[in-house]
Order: sequence, then structure tokens, then C-alpha cells
Amino acid sequence: MSKSPSNPKGTRDFLPLELSKRNYIINILRKNFKNFGFSEIETPALEKSSTLLGKYGNEGDRLVFKILNSGDKVKKADISSLQSGDLNSFIRSISEKGLKYDLTVPLARFVSQHQNEITFPFKRFQIQNVWRADRPQHGRFQEFTQCDADVVGSNSVLQEIELIKLYDTVFNQLGFSDLVIKINHRRILKELACYFGAGENIVEFITALDKIDKIGVDKVLEEIKLLTLDFSEKELRNLLSAKEFDLGYLKKIFSKNSDSFYALDELNQILSYFSVNNLVNEIKFDLTLARGLNYYTGTIIEVLSKTNQRIGSIGGGGRYDDLTSMFNLKNMSGVGISFGLDRIYLLMEESKLFPDYLDKSFEFMVANFGISNLESLAPYVDEIRNKNREVFIYPDNVKLTKQFSFANKHNASVVIIYGENERKEGIVTLKNMLTGDQSSCQLNELVQTLTNS
Amino acid sequence: MSKSPSNPKGTRDFLPLELSKRNYIINILRKNFKNFGFSEIETPALEKSSTLLGKYGNEGDRLVFKILNSGDKVKKADISSLQSGDLNSFIRSISEKGLKYDLTVPLARFVSQHQNEITFPFKRFQIQNVWRADRPQHGRFQEFTQCDADVVGSNSVLQEIELIKLYDTVFNQLGFSDLVIKINHRRILKELACYFGAGENIVEFITALDKIDKIGVDKVLEEIKLLTLDFSEKELRNLLSAKEFDLGYLKKIFSKNSDSFYALDELNQILSYFSVNNLVNEIKFDLTLARGLNYYTGTIIEVLSKTNQRIGSIGGGGRYDDLTSMFNLKNMSGVGISFGLDRIYLLMEESKLFPDYLDKSFEFMVANFGISNLESLAPYVDEIRNKNREVFIYPDNVKLTKQFSFANKHNASVVIIYGENERKEGIVTLKNMLTGDQSSCQLNELVQTLTNS
Repeated sequence: MSKSPSNPKGTRDFLPLELSKRNYIINILRKNFKNFGFSEIETPALEKSSTLLGKYGNEGDRLVFKILNSGDKVKKADISSLQSGDLNSFIRSISEKGLKYDLTVPLARFVSQHQNEITFPFKRFQIQNVWRADRPQHGRFQEFTQCDADVVGSNSVLQEIELIKLYDTVFNQLGFSDLVIKINHRRILKELACYFGAGENIVEFITALDKIDKIGVDKVLEEIKLLTLDFSEKELRNLLSAKEFDLGYLKKIFSKNSDSFYALDELNQILSYFSVNNLVNEIKFDLTLARGLNYYTGTIIEVLSKTNQRIGSIGGGGRYDDLTSMFNLKNMSGVGISFGLDRIYLLMEESKLFPDYLDKSFEFMVANFGISNLESLAPYVDEIRNKNREVFIYPDNVKLTKQFSFANKHNASVVIIYGENERKEGIVTLKNMLTGDQSSCQLNELVQTLTNS
Repeated sequence: MSKSPSNPKGTRDFLPLELSKRNYIINILRKNFKNFGFSEIETPALEKSSTLLGKYGNEGDRLVFKILNSGDKVKKADISSLQSGDLNSFIRSISEKGLKYDLTVPLARFVSQHQNEITFPFKRFQIQNVWRADRPQHGRFQEFTQCDADVVGSNSVLQEIELIKLYDTVFNQLGFSDLVIKINHRRILKELACYFGAGENIVEFITALDKIDKIGVDKVLEEIKLLTLDFSEKELRNLLSAKEFDLGYLKKIFSKNSDSFYALDELNQILSYFSVNNLVNEIKFDLTLARGLNYYTGTIIEVLSKTNQRIGSIGGGGRYDDLTSMFNLKNMSGVGISFGLDRIYLLMEESKLFPDYLDKSFEFMVANFGISNLESLAPYVDEIRNKNREVFIYPDNVKLTKQFSFANKHNASVVIIYGENERKEGIVTLKNMLTGDQSSCQLNELVQTLTNS
């Protein structure tokens, strides 16, 4: 028995106001995912350890929450491996399941498992919680919501175009118009590493480039000097410092290797498509965009606020070849994007993009003067609710000032007053909670009066 | 690496069609919860062991999924208690958190923890997953969704009335009109036990009554004979067999104990309220309704299908005094109901209550004739999507028969055809996928043609 109960560190309780703002974002996401032809799926929180482990590297595996086997199965604990310091074996002896770490590995498992029940190309979205046993700290949670849309089983560049359009549409509907959607291509980064003599250290080269926003061009060049001896610092500096990247220039310096030429061509198709069909937000080819060390192999995409870069990217994604090969389904290219719900929330809060009506717990409150009065008001309350308007009936017949104060705390628009006097006269008194004004109407005109305003 | 990947037993993947039907139910629930003035909250999946354990009895504690401590904390495993067979101590040494088992204990924790941030009476609803380490079997899952609405901090019988009205409204909107909403009161069951001489065995008496639907009146009477020597079998048989229960008769046989008289009065108020404000479904006082051995102390409610009783109750709830006292917040009466999502789903599937449009993955599909054709069609697709209609653009420029077959599998209504010929003439060909008919319209009339139908 806990004296002062609390939720575990790194997890959150959502109170009504915060949740209704989060759901406002999620509803706009879900609606647009559907309008773009994505279908929603859900996978369980629990996955087998064999599905989860070995997919995120050692660091990732460490962050997977493991579930203790239940019942007498715990007795099979392998004490000797605990004593010899082999924690992984010990854990394997008492745990066969874990909580999902992201939505991508479960998607790969799902597609492979249900390949005969779905039709390719498979466009799915998923809005679900994931769990990471990360050290809890400000703004980093152990339980959080991911919002992903992916297409599996199509190589067409049209998918990249549609996903960028989806980003623009969603963010526009959320009220953003100052964003930049950056794109780059993993194959170009590879080719660039080769061109500057770091062909043996591609990953390190990409890692160095990825830090440019944080440490600047000079420091990036210093790091690259450690990876390659034979390169023109001036040429790389010019490239990395350029305000506008020139696909034509890259075509000139790259070997006519079909792989990277195809990548340049793909970026070119995307950019020229959006030179005809304009976006609300800006789209920009950014040669320094790298998106960490994850599994992307093709186009990469990232969304940032131009006026508030401090908050970091609020969306990102890309293409990964062979998404499902880890589950023995070959040749399924995947491309997808993710929306950063928590950061979008923060940015919308800062920029005051949430509509005011979200502050209301309910629109109308019926003051309580006893059940017999409510009995005759009930059919009208039913009607208002059937018109999808929210009515809270105050539960107890207490002082009106207490009832009004409750309505105020919940930002109700109108309090409906139907006491003895009103009942005798067949009228209803309406108190406007914003202005404090009172007016009245006939009981049988109540629904119209309230729902036409 | 798993050869044939699968989700853990007792958990489910939801494919698009099933999920859209589940979400159809959930959306109607959420909308009505809000219309009735309930506010939504969410609590994490993870709770501290101190919050979860000791709240559900020994059997319940056994069914709580425990999370293994992460990192080096596992090294603190108490081997000696494992060896001495004290599994609980062993588990405590390596686990401090678990997955929530229901939404009621987290609600009690939430209300107690956030008592200064919320206003009472607190009407909240919650639609979230819970986990139980139950033996997986047909129709019983380890991970499932609970849909609960509760009021905390009001003793008014108006809450019971509102919750019954909420049941009726939701089920009516889902298409049900053959349900019976049964009500009873725990205090009446207690008084009944005393009246028939089983005052020492109240729990056993209630447990026996609870089986009446399964084993019949005769067997229930046999069980009660074991609990009490001094009772009129004939009188109890008459009571239990009665088609309509008579509150007046109970008033006569019960001692004028204020506690049970208050209970009878409460039921009377509820029933007379609904004799004025009719429900779509039936409401019925049922003296044999007991609702298991859980924490209810006042009114109890259960919803059943009259035509399909086999499936069991599709909703239930009741009032419990001192909901939050387990977390040291006293005198907070709670009353709430729960909707049985999985059973409602099954019953709606059997009774064909789901609307046909849920079978469509998307409404419109654009056939693909290459990106240059799509470029000029794009603004019109944008407009259709902005009107909240779903458009799937086929990603690859492949044979039309293959594209049509894809549209068919997804139950699309119309395929939009805009090839070379159409582009030259400035028209669009529309293929109705239900009738197979083709028609055409001017490109600039496309949006109106599709969205006005």
C-alpha cells in the first residue's frame, strides 16, 4: 500500500485538457492517413523476445522492457548464469516476451506473418504506444506514442512524393506554414564518402556529416580529416556550406555509377514534381541530412520548424530496402514517415495553434434542482446530446453558486437553469458563462436556441 | 531470428477491416461519453508494483504481468528466496513494475494523486488496453481493451440514472434494441441473506444466487440449504422464480433497517424515472443479479441481449463506496459502467449491425499511367482529400487489369482513369466498381462529380 501514490518515472498520466489536445493532433493525423489511402492496423504491446531482440543492436536490446514469465515458469531461473555474470542468459531463462520498442519491427513481423491476407503494395498506418527502458529525463519518456505511415512492396518514387505531400497537408491543417521538409538520399551520401576518399569509412563519414547542425562545418571537416587523407577540403567545404545544393554539380563530380545516378534522378523527380504542385511549407534538398545510423537505404526525409529549430525535427522517415527480410520475406521495399507527437504538441503549445474549444470539458451544464425537475427536462437534454453536443448534468441539488463555480472551472459556455419557477412558467433560464448574461426561452424552444447558436 | 514469426499467444494483430469495425464501436462510445459530460484521461500501461499488487486478491496478483528491472538491477536477484520456494520474494527482488490489470485501480491511483488538479464530482472515461497473464484460450486474451466511464465523488442516484441512459443511448446508436438492462442493489442482497438466515454467509449466499442462470433455481436452493437451516424454501423459491420482482413485497419482508430501505428507495427512484422517460431497451429489476464477488457495495447493473443470451453480458457496472481509500483518499463514492468491446463486436457481427462502408479500405482509386499524368491530376486529388474523402493512388504504372483487381480487393467505389487520351481531351474516365459501368466528365468537374454523389 503506497502512502502517496504515483505513476512510474518516465511514464505519464494524461489529464483531460492535455489529452484532448493530443487527440486533436491524432485525429487530424488519422483522418489524413485515411484520406491518403492508408489503412490502420494494430499490433499488441507484447511481442516474443525472438521478434524483438537482435533488431536494434546491443544498446537497443538493453532498452527493451522484458516481461517476467508467469506462474511456476519463474522457477526455471538459470542461477548459474546469473552467478557467472551472464545476465543475458539469466534473463532468457525467465523471460520470453517484451514490450514493443518501436512500430517498425512489429510492422515487419506483421507483414511477413500476414503476407497472404494482405495485398501489396500495403499502405498502413499505426498510432500506438511503444516502450523503452531509457533513463527517464526531461522530455524523454519510457512510454510514448508513435505515429507511423509506411508503404511496403513498391519501389515507385510516387510513394516519396505522396508522403511529402502528406506531411505538408497534415502540418498545414495543424496550423503550421513555417516548416522546411528536407530531403536527401543515402546512396548520395555513400557516393560522396567514396568521392572524398572515405569509401572504407562510410558510416563514420555519415555520422560526422549528421553533426553539422550541432558542431558546424569546421568541426565536421576536422572529423572527416581523420577518416580520409586524400580529399580536397576546399571542395567539401564549398559543398557543405552551399545555401542551395545543385544536383547538376553532383552529377558532374560523381562517377557514372548507375546506383547513385538513379538516386540523383529520384530526388530530381521529387523536386520537379513539387515545383509544379506547390507545397504550403518549403521543400529543400539538404546534402548534410543523414538521419542517424538507422536502417535507411534510400531517400531520407526530415521536417523542422524554421522559426523554432531548438525543438529538433518534428517528423522524419525514409526508404529501407528489404524491410521484412529479417522475418524471411525478401524483396519488400518499405518507405515510411513518422510524426513526433510530443514535439508537435510542444511546438503547437508555444505557437498557440490549438483551438480554444479544446479548453472546454463540456459545452452545456444543467443546474440541479432535484430529480423531479430533471425528469421534465430530460427529453430536451437527450435531444441536445443526440445532436452531438456535450451536456453535463450537475449531480447534486446544492447551492447555485457552487454549481456555477463548477461550470466556470470547466469553461462551460451556458448553464441551463430549470427550477421550480421556470417549471411553472414552462420556460428555461440560460446563463451565458462568458458574459454572465441571463436570458430565457420556452422549454420547447430550448434545443433550437442552444444548438443554432 | 524467428523462421515463421508470430504474435504471442493470447494477443492479437488487428488487420484493417477488423480494426475499422472496432474503431466504429469505440468512436460511438467516445462521442457519447463526451456528450454525457465525461472527460477522457489516460494512464500508463506501466504501474508500480506497489500500486498494482494487493488489490485483486492472490489470484489477481498472480495474473499481473511483471516487468523485469532493467540494466544491472537484475543482479540483485534474491537467489535464496528462489531456492527456498518463496517465489513472491524472488519476483520482488527483480521487478518493481507491472502492466495494468484493469482501469479501476489506476483510476483510484489517478484520483488520489491528482486530487488537487481535478474538480469533484469527477466524471471520466478511459478506453485503454489492460493485460492479464491468464491462460490464453478461445475468446480470452492476455491483452484487451477496456472501455469504462465512472463518476467519483457523488452519492446522487442521478449518476445511476445517467449511466443507464448512457448504456441505452450507446447501444441504440450501435443498432441494438433487444437488450435488457438489469439492475439490483448489493444492500438488498445482503438483507436477503439475513432474512433467509444466511447472515453469516453473505458472500456464499450471493455466490449461489449468481449461478441461477447457469444451474437453475433448484440447484441454487440446494446450495443455499447448506448455508442456512432456518429458512422458508417455498418463500425463497417464489421470490427467485418470480417473473416480475415486487419492490413493495421486499419492503414488507425486510426489517425497517434504514440501509436496505434506502437501497429499495434508490431502485424505486431509478425505475420510476424510466417509467416517465422511456428507454429504447428494457430496464428490469432482477433480484438474482449479483455480479460476482467484486468490490460493488451499492447499485449493480448488467446489460444482456434478450435474443442471444449465450454470449453473456455485454456491459456491467455498479457503485462502490470508498473507491480511493486504498490510496488514502477517504469518502469518495464511485459509480461506473464498462462496455465489453469484444462481446459487443461479436454480437454486432452476428446481427450484421456494422454498416457496409466499413468494408472499404478507401473510396476512390486513381489508376497509374505515369507521374507526368498524375502531375496534372494532383490538384484535383488534393481537393477530394481535403473534402475528407479517401483517395488511393496506385503506385506503379502496370497493366490496368492488375490495378482494377487491386481496387476490387479493397472494395473501392470508383477508379479514376486519366491516361494519355483523357489528358489530351481534358476529361476523366470514371469506372464504377460495383456496376462496372464507365462514364466520363470534364477534368475540372471531377471533384464535384465524385463528392456530390
